[in-house]
Amino acid sequence: MTDSGESLTEEAVRRWGTAHPPRMAELMTGLVRHLHAFAREVDLTTDEWMTAMDWLTRTGRISDDKRQEFILASDVLGLSSLVVQLDQKSDERATPATVLGPFHIDGSPVVESGFDMSEGLSGTPLFIVGRVTDLYGRPVPSAVLDVWQADVDGAYESQLADIDEARLRAQYRAGADGKYCVRTIAPLGYTIPMDGPVGELISRTGISPYRPAHIHFLVDQPGYRRLVTHLFPAGTDHLDSDVVFGVKDALVTPFVEYQPGPGPDGTIMDRPFLVTHYDFVLAPASS
Amino acid sequence: MTDSGESLTEEAVRRWGTAHPPRMAELMTGLVRHLHAFAREVDLTTDEWMTAMDWLTRTGRISDDKRQEFILASDVLGLSSLVVQLDQKSDERATPATVLGPFHIDGSPVVESGFDMSEGLSGTPLFIVGRVTDLYGRPVPSAVLDVWQADVDGAYESQLADIDEARLRAQYRAGADGKYCVRTIAPLGYTIPMDGPVGELISRTGISPYRPAHIHFLVDQPGYRRLVTHLFPAGTDHLDSDVVFGVKDALVTPFVEYQPGPGPDGTIMDRPFLVTHYDFVLAPASS
Ligand SMILES: [Fe+2]
Ligand SMILES: [Fe+2]
Repeated sequence: MTDSGESLTEEAVRRWGTAHPPRMAELMTGLVRHLHAFAREVDLTTDEWMTAMDWLTRTGRISDDKRQEFILASDVLGLSSLVVQLDQKSDERATPATVLGPFHIDGSPVVESGFDMSEGLSGTPLFIVGRVTDLYGRPVPSAVLDVWQADVDGAYESQLADIDEARLRAQYRAGADGKYCVRTIAPLGYTIPMDGPVGELISRTGISPYRPAHIHFLVDQPGYRRLVTHLFPAGTDHLDSDVVFGVKDALVTPFVEYQPGPGPDGTIMDRPFLVTHYDFVLAPASS
Repeated sequence: MTDSGESLTEEAVRRWGTAHPPRMAELMTGLVRHLHAFAREVDLTTDEWMTAMDWLTRTGRISDDKRQEFILASDVLGLSSLVVQLDQKSDERATPATVLGPFHIDGSPVVESGFDMSEGLSGTPLFIVGRVTDLYGRPVPSAVLDVWQADVDGAYESQLADIDEARLRAQYRAGADGKYCVRTIAPLGYTIPMDGPVGELISRTGISPYRPAHIHFLVDQPGYRRLVTHLFPAGTDHLDSDVVFGVKDALVTPFVEYQPGPGPDGTIMDRPFLVTHYDFVLAPASS
């Protein structure tokens, strides 16, 4: 062979440039160019290519309604966090977005402020209270916050078999004044699933497989930009080495410990509990 | 967000640079850089990213022992052909390699020269005869040629259900003089499988889904570089637009028509048949 395949790349770009709509052509020709540039730069061998094909196939085959191994791969490669960053063109006053992660389940039960989504599970009680507002601090009335988290063993509902009802997930409806109150248990750090193709890759590196403790939020309110984010307890482990590149300073918030007594919504607590205050600030949909 | 994620990319490259062995670190950091550069260049949106995650998952889930949709994707993006080109560092006197394709089945029956691998199937009889040699024209004794092709409907065995014995595939053992004789039927052009995620992509472009008629060969002889290639009949359709970028001039060979009478191996043929002569030239394993 006399060239390094440049003419082949040109021909592939020309062909995929016929894709429609034009955005599809832009995406596909960009993909072809970067994929070929990668292969050429690392001088990819047939054996390595075959290993990659096998890895991709196994990653797809292990995925199902409950497990999203490609999203996990995208997360640990920093691609998910990059896309969030590229996509969030909203005002800097808005709460920053972060990765969705592979464990969200659609259609959690809609509940009122103060509902305990950890009912029956062990853990330190936690109240998350605050308001949902627009960029000017005005309440977003009846905003719904979709909340999900892992249990004290690091397991999300979607990782467990035979769950009959929603477990550590709920959609909280805020009041007319934008106020909300989530009652749950304190989150703990966990490792990403290490028993699949992504774990295989991570285990061949010095990368820490831990995520710092966090709770997921998704606020998708008509008229506002959809916000996918987390809250992290200040001072928790792994904030500097989150395996999915999800931490942002503005999402780290103090979890303050209280002795037994009235909680922020008036519930009388018979053991110590934690409270954090956090206001979610939504950008308008048009921005 | 004030930057376009460059610091995130740097951190991801730093982390994946801890992979071992060093070649793994080279591959993973190259992958991270090109993946991020692609996302940044096209300003990938969250919706597009999610569509891509879903496409990857479906591509993996449709794949199994008989269907290799990721190899097909790599083929139509020109990546497979590029890897072949990068990988074939052998002498230019050797027969050029081309793509493996998704339809090879391991362990075909080993047969003697002249065996008819199309027995019982319709099609125009074809003899492929020639020698397997080294770069200096010396015979490679007892070389084994693994041969496979599609039937007149464009179907490979691996695309059909409930096949009991090898169908249009066999491993031919050449003689001590390197001579071989494959008996089969003339190949026809076919379209790649259009009913999966790769077909979905192709159908959104002006790309022709056809491959020109061809027969696959794999010659993997101790002491020689493994050769994965095709033969194409001269003058067949789609030679200029092969959907998987597999055509190379040196692999196009005339299929000459003969009237009923003796075939090249002495078999008396009672209907017209085709003959092509082709010598496979192997590079040494060390090159
Ligand atoms: Fe999480
Ligand atoms: Fe083929």
